[in-house]
Amino acid sequence: MSKKEKYAVGVDLGGTNLKLGIVTDDGQIIEKSALKTNADEGPDSIIRQIIKGINEIFLNNKFKIQGVGIGSPGVVSPEHGTVENPPNLPHWGTVPLGKYIKEEFGLAVHVENDANAAAIGEMIFGAGKDLNSFIMITLGTGVGGGIIHNRQIFRGEFGAAGEIGHMTINFEGPKCNCGSIGCIETYIGINYLKKRVSEELLEHRNSKIWNLINDNLAEVTPKIIQEAAEMDDEYAKFVIERMGLHLGAALASVSNLLDINTIIVGGGVAGFGAPLIDAITKNIKERVLTSIKNRVKVIPALLKNDAGIQGASALVFYKSLSG
Amino acid sequence: MSKKEKYAVGVDLGGTNLKLGIVTDDGQIIEKSALKTNADEGPDSIIRQIIKGINEIFLNNKFKIQGVGIGSPGVVSPEHGTVENPPNLPHWGTVPLGKYIKEEFGLAVHVENDANAAAIGEMIFGAGKDLNSFIMITLGTGVGGGIIHNRQIFRGEFGAAGEIGHMTINFEGPKCNCGSIGCIETYIGINYLKKRVSEELLEHRNSKIWNLINDNLAEVTPKIIQEAAEMDDEYAKFVIERMGLHLGAALASVSNLLDINTIIVGGGVAGFGAPLIDAITKNIKERVLTSIKNRVKVIPALLKNDAGIQGASALVFYKSLSG
Repeated sequence: MSKKEKYAVGVDLGGTNLKLGIVTDDGQIIEKSALKTNADEGPDSIIRQIIKGINEIFLNNKFKIQGVGIGSPGVVSPEHGTVENPPNLPHWGTVPLGKYIKEEFGLAVHVENDANAAAIGEMIFGAGKDLNSFIMITLGTGVGGGIIHNRQIFRGEFGAAGEIGHMTINFEGPKCNCGSIGCIETYIGINYLKKRVSEELLEHRNSKIWNLINDNLAEVTPKIIQEAAEMDDEYAKFVIERMGLHLGAALASVSNLLDINTIIVGGGVAGFGAPLIDAITKNIKERVLTSIKNRVKVIPALLKNDAGIQGASALVFYKSLSG
Repeated sequence: MSKKEKYAVGVDLGGTNLKLGIVTDDGQIIEKSALKTNADEGPDSIIRQIIKGINEIFLNNKFKIQGVGIGSPGVVSPEHGTVENPPNLPHWGTVPLGKYIKEEFGLAVHVENDANAAAIGEMIFGAGKDLNSFIMITLGTGVGGGIIHNRQIFRGEFGAAGEIGHMTINFEGPKCNCGSIGCIETYIGINYLKKRVSEELLEHRNSKIWNLINDNLAEVTPKIIQEAAEMDDEYAKFVIERMGLHLGAALASVSNLLDINTIIVGGGVAGFGAPLIDAITKNIKERVLTSIKNRVKVIPALLKNDAGIQGASALVFYKSLSG
């Protein structure tokens, strides 16, 4: 049976990198590019970058494009295609990003919060393909989240739902950049995690992490911690176990509150892989209500390095599915 | 304009008391009764109590009843009318409570989890009448919750959503009856609260609470604490402030996760009144994300002593509204 493929452009707008690609409706990337975001130059410059980037990936391609999906940080109104004050992208205010791109290319444009785009990406192409409902948690510098309920993004009253990263796991815990206290992000957001591990390493002089970073604490990364854990380093294993405890506490709260029982874990920190997934699973099962215990499940995201592009393009296929 | 009133029976099944009433479609109770639940005698005995109770309130009444609503503890399937292992009601398993009552009276019967019934009661008759979406939190021995989104109960995958009481506010906190650690219920559930206050009073010999309880710690109640606070007792005011901190942390998590921004506070502990509502408001505003800060609002429930009966009866009017 031959199947006619469809194509969409995915734009992954980040504070550091701007990534673009042409993606088929089964999630294959057939053309892509990446550049540094002109973050300091404000929205006009970034819009020009996006337009130039799309034109460039269009140069070599003869495909009929169904639309453009954009995943963006900040408060996004998918209805209006606007992006409001993305953290790490200064001088924005409220920008009708969707309108500008639509005017340039005459294509349907779908703008979505990047965490929601990641969830939609997993639903359309990834680990959520066969799930009606799931929680997506994205572990990176920030901890993002998206709630899929009955194959729809749950947006709440004003579209800002899904901020798992700012759920409190200790009301007397560390101060968070968001202004609150003890958010899960202050425990496992990459920068917070690096800082904590760097401090603790001073008390763990025998940790194999020291060799892997050549005694340079600035080189601590999730990947290094994972490598040390694979070499059976006790401290590195403890760090991953503790992340499982912190994430298990937050995600058990989510599961008890929403009775949505599959958690998909994605993002950079998820590079920790199976040991982290196992640690989260163990802790969440210890904490959820009895009625939920047997159905709760933690699984890794299927989309990896190009998840941002794929998730953004999935917005187009998701919209064309949901009418 | 004369309006034709409609009538429903509301049954509030509790581990201690069984309350029944006939309620009009604007929430007025026109007949009611209450008796001790035969909790130890198992479901058959309790079903007989409910049937007898309904027959008794029917004796003097000539109204055409639209249906029976039952609010029950435990895991309830509104679809099947079943109630599963309610805590405090031993020997249950899974009981098709709705079916038995329907067979007896030939009326439509709607069974719902008691926390959801409380939320539906506020939506149909109370503080949620004009709200599209809100979070209902019920403060009592347990801490219950219900999520109303677009005038529907959010049930999650298997109908168990809304367990705000078992959201973690400190992953290293006190052990909870549910098996988890640091649930909000372990801080402000009535029994936990009484125990903590009784212990702390030993260090607060000058507190006016001592006079109000005649030096008998067994007599500590939310009402007593509130009375002492009204007499400007420092320790009592501190207890209420601290409850606001604990609830503010849990509810900020809920609001960040769901972007549902009105919280309705009901239940016995809500007898604390305005000072507790103010303390929750202050703490939730300090903790929610900037984008949510200006829209978050905490208000007291309007339904009071008969909230259980009214909420149960509201199930009938809610169903007849939603088709």
